[in-house]
Amino acid sequence: MTLPIGPEDVLAAAARLDGVAHRTPVMTSRTADERTGAQLFFKCENLQRVGAFKFRGAYSALSRFTPAQRKGGVIAYSSGNHGQAIAVSARLLGMPVAIVMPQDAPPIKIAATRGYGAEVILYDRYTENREAIGQRIATERGMTLIPPYNHVDVIAGQGTAALELIEEAGALDALVVCVGGGGLIGGCATITKHLLPECRVIGVEPAAGNDMQRSLAEGRIIHIDVPDTIADGAQTQHAGELTFPILQALVERIVTVTDPQLVAAMRFFFERMKIVVEPTGCLGAAALFERAIDLRGKRVGVILSGGNVDAERFASLLSMAPRAD
Amino acid sequence: MTLPIGPEDVLAAAARLDGVAHRTPVMTSRTADERTGAQLFFKCENLQRVGAFKFRGAYSALSRFTPAQRKGGVIAYSSGNHGQAIAVSARLLGMPVAIVMPQDAPPIKIAATRGYGAEVILYDRYTENREAIGQRIATERGMTLIPPYNHVDVIAGQGTAALELIEEAGALDALVVCVGGGGLIGGCATITKHLLPECRVIGVEPAAGNDMQRSLAEGRIIHIDVPDTIADGAQTQHAGELTFPILQALVERIVTVTDPQLVAAMRFFFERMKIVVEPTGCLGAAALFERAIDLRGKRVGVILSGGNVDAERFASLLSMAPRAD
Repeated sequence: MTLPIGPEDVLAAAARLDGVAHRTPVMTSRTADERTGAQLFFKCENLQRVGAFKFRGAYSALSRFTPAQRKGGVIAYSSGNHGQAIAVSARLLGMPVAIVMPQDAPPIKIAATRGYGAEVILYDRYTENREAIGQRIATERGMTLIPPYNHVDVIAGQGTAALELIEEAGALDALVVCVGGGGLIGGCATITKHLLPECRVIGVEPAAGNDMQRSLAEGRIIHIDVPDTIADGAQTQHAGELTFPILQALVERIVTVTDPQLVAAMRFFFERMKIVVEPTGCLGAAALFERAIDLRGKRVGVILSGGNVDAERFASLLSMAPRAD
Repeated sequence: MTLPIGPEDVLAAAARLDGVAHRTPVMTSRTADERTGAQLFFKCENLQRVGAFKFRGAYSALSRFTPAQRKGGVIAYSSGNHGQAIAVSARLLGMPVAIVMPQDAPPIKIAATRGYGAEVILYDRYTENREAIGQRIATERGMTLIPPYNHVDVIAGQGTAALELIEEAGALDALVVCVGGGGLIGGCATITKHLLPECRVIGVEPAAGNDMQRSLAEGRIIHIDVPDTIADGAQTQHAGELTFPILQALVERIVTVTDPQLVAAMRFFFERMKIVVEPTGCLGAAALFERAIDLRGKRVGVILSGGNVDAERFASLLSMAPRAD
């Protein structure tokens, strides 16, 4: 079966992102290695532009717009990292941009999105549907809608994180990636299985929202309610039509972790590695720390997907997983 | 006048540290540049071994021990970064090590120091004097006492942070460094004024403990009570006999910042740059953010001296400087 994207698409996205996206560092930690028994290579997408890997997919998609599309501009619905990534990418490419956000989104996020030069369109998330609003405005204004994960150029862009990781760390026995809608792991699996066919690709979801795990088990896309988890980047309700077949073909399995396990991993990154990783970005590391995956003796890549957690939220999350000692 | 160390001592320390200390990254931030009007280069010693620049000075000193000194081992009094740096350096060099710490030091710090292989000697800080204890045990056991800043090899080692920064960032108009006992800024000023004679070297102290500012103004070492500040790495009570003349000769001036200004800078590093910097490590950046120093249009190096703040303490410090919006 032909998958929606191939490794050549990731390589093409890498060329478009060259000099625009940060080539983020790969960090290692003796303590993390001792704790897991593996040799870990952390790809620090928390240090990416806008603080998350989402910049890769957004810029990958917008940089392929035709002149007519650029003139019309781009619209996205997201109160999170995807929206900010689209806003920044549009500004870099000099095109109009509108972001559909809920009225009750944190004011700081609305202000930040406007600060990036985007028009913010507010909606009532209890009575209105953001996808319908996005589609309607896109049609009315001649804008192109870019969804957060179900888009070939977005998936290809996200895969460049794994490409860079392998270029820097060398051969890996396994790659561990957080899973929301499947864009990041889909792109990463595409390039990884091409470069390193024996490398195992393992996804990690929040236990409260394991729709991908269930979907892969049942062989069809399962829809769930908005999951109750602190991993806000993985609160997706279903896989994408484009991402799902990629995961079916290339991902070995999905494991889950709990919110307190995510907080413990956040604390580890803060105290031992001196970096800020948002809850969603901790999914992969938490699975390894908790031995949800046992990769002792292996060389393992782990994508830290983002670092967008504000200081007050970090402080309040700590109480979910008090220090062990 | 001949100063206690010269640039050749810093270069020799760099050779001893090569391959042992981390060559820490230099980070930049568009937002920080916009906020200050300067072009800032942050030297990330929070990502150094043991989480602070102190490793440089400790290893610099211990690696010059004679065979007899190595056999006798090393002793230090410190409940903070210097103690851990001495413990780790001693282990790397295979020598005995004892650290004198107050009985009421945080159990996690005592455990961490023991975890590095050090013997921990506890004392009552209300009735006993740690310097006297350190001297007595050093004499009894034939150990060498290494003080935290008043030692030529320690000062030379700290200077390697500025050496690397200049090697990576190129010419600087100014270097901004936090000031405790003066070891870091003394070593950094020594190499900086040698490589870049026109570069201004500016120190930053907590407003509650500006003994160095006052000492330089009066031309003699002033002693103060333990200052009440969250910058625990700068709670020194007086300059060293070795550091003071270096600062007199090479440092342009000392400015001060308040604790809430330090917290605001910590928040900035957390939220915008996704890195953890301890309060003392924020002194230089806070002075720039608050325009205590105006270096608009200049290329400015800033040493982020360490990242050792635990998650709970970070959380509790936030309340000192609530978010502005």
